[in-house]
Amino acid sequence: MTPFADRLLAAVDRVKNPTVLGLDPKIDYVPTSIREIARQRFADPAQATAEALLEFNRRLIDALSDLVAVAKPQFAYYETLGPHGARCLAETIRHAKDRGMVIIADAKRNDIGPTAEAYARAILGETDLVDGSSKAFLDADAVTLNGYLGADGIVPFLSVCDRLGKGVFVLVRTSNPSAVDFQDLPLADGRPLYEAVAAKVAEWGAPRVSACGYSSVGAVVGATWPEQARTLRRLMPSTPILVPGYGAQGATADAAAASFDAQGRGAVVNASRSLMCAYNLKVHEGRLTAEDFESAARSEAVRMRDDLTAAIRRKNTNA
Amino acid sequence: MTPFADRLLAAVDRVKNPTVLGLDPKIDYVPTSIREIARQRFADPAQATAEALLEFNRRLIDALSDLVAVAKPQFAYYETLGPHGARCLAETIRHAKDRGMVIIADAKRNDIGPTAEAYARAILGETDLVDGSSKAFLDADAVTLNGYLGADGIVPFLSVCDRLGKGVFVLVRTSNPSAVDFQDLPLADGRPLYEAVAAKVAEWGAPRVSACGYSSVGAVVGATWPEQARTLRRLMPSTPILVPGYGAQGATADAAAASFDAQGRGAVVNASRSLMCAYNLKVHEGRLTAEDFESAARSEAVRMRDDLTAAIRRKNTNA
Repeated sequence: MTPFADRLLAAVDRVKNPTVLGLDPKIDYVPTSIREIARQRFADPAQATAEALLEFNRRLIDALSDLVAVAKPQFAYYETLGPHGARCLAETIRHAKDRGMVIIADAKRNDIGPTAEAYARAILGETDLVDGSSKAFLDADAVTLNGYLGADGIVPFLSVCDRLGKGVFVLVRTSNPSAVDFQDLPLADGRPLYEAVAAKVAEWGAPRVSACGYSSVGAVVGATWPEQARTLRRLMPSTPILVPGYGAQGATADAAAASFDAQGRGAVVNASRSLMCAYNLKVHEGRLTAEDFESAARSEAVRMRDDLTAAIRRKNTNA
Repeated sequence: MTPFADRLLAAVDRVKNPTVLGLDPKIDYVPTSIREIARQRFADPAQATAEALLEFNRRLIDALSDLVAVAKPQFAYYETLGPHGARCLAETIRHAKDRGMVIIADAKRNDIGPTAEAYARAILGETDLVDGSSKAFLDADAVTLNGYLGADGIVPFLSVCDRLGKGVFVLVRTSNPSAVDFQDLPLADGRPLYEAVAAKVAEWGAPRVSACGYSSVGAVVGATWPEQARTLRRLMPSTPILVPGYGAQGATADAAAASFDAQGRGAVVNASRSLMCAYNLKVHEGRLTAEDFESAARSEAVRMRDDLTAAIRRKNTNA
């Protein structure tokens, strides 16, 4: 069983692209033809909606899996569809794993003791059933966590990770404007709060560093604040970093590059709408229709790969 | 549409009991007879497990709804069963609402922008479907939130709450030992972090105070730290407080009473295992079997009501 960080870095190496395909599907994103087929096939509108999202996800995954090696489903969008959404999520993950992608479950879970264990089983592990059997429903490779509850909210996940070769990404410094409300508050010891969280993330990861030099305890560090990202990369040298905020949220490739190490490794950069709805720009330019979403997503994945790769090279040449 | 806080306080008044029935079902808790019936009726072991949990929940709700007016399903336990769990959760909530209970969805969600809106729609609101219709899957009355992302993680929920008369409970000071890791860190201005979170919770709630004197923006404050709870009650005078930690986690009724106001209102106290598995103690005493879980839960709900009511009275007599 290969440790999570080794699998993550190998996946990125395979495609030479640190991009993460954020799968945050909304029905508005789905081209009309897919929606119409789903409506005709399924009488229940909730099921039809979930099936349309699933077909859209599957086709995006098929279009991108030679260019992008990591997928990050955002659980909120699936949860809007109840049981149908839960099935769509599980099928999306299974399809992406079948295509060789590493799955980061973006669930931002946080709870303690047996409840944290239940979340870990639900997302990364297996559930014990009434007949004595057990079943893995999602079997994701890693999950995002919110650390506000302290070690009690993280350690139960790490037990599951250690056993199954999986990982977590703890929110350290997020990409949104109001991250300043609490994360940036100055502590009595002079550090901002997010540096105290980073120190704990590094501590939890220290005994979990694998062959690639990175641990199974990752961090989420937004690309919108590159100065802080540089500090955090230094404070957490063995921590894989998941970088949101590139593209739709306005951060540049140079800003995202701050989370990479001197070898250009150790981070992955999420893109959700900019890949899922890449067709939008070209539709506006009159060059494509929404039905061409796959080729538009491929072009954008190549553009993003080249943009990030060049920025990472620039950073490490200048350093 | 009655505001959430008015509905919450009226529900507690109806039964004269601030207890919240925490519905955190595990298959181990379910008496053998219920498990066996589910196994015989459903060939799929995951479905059988979910059906056993649902039947256990339903019978607990039926046994308690004249004594306990608020139910708090903990989402993690349902999520361990994938689509079957999602259905079990929705049916549990529907059954409890049919019995007049107010539902606090214990999901501790936290995300920003459109993702936060998606969670709000999934748990409190409605989802737009592919045929132009919309559907409420859970329709809970309130949801627990983690505020680490700042206002961007809270405000999208409040928009939904304002429109639908619903509420949120933001984690301020949790009941677990490692709450100290971050929540208690001293800030440069001398306050612990949780007081900065409390100030924001009070601020978000200020324009949302309804007839009862409380707002739709609640807080989670553990009973395990009564001194801090007294401070937080003072800092958030219009904030309804959800109190975990009583019973199984070791806090006394006197400790839980610290979150109530001078009129003995404004807080609710969760009990999960101590109600769901109340039969355990009596089984050990040789007086009951697990099949008597309903009468054991009723006895415990009465004991808890009297324990809390006496402690709240003591506090307000001594004050």
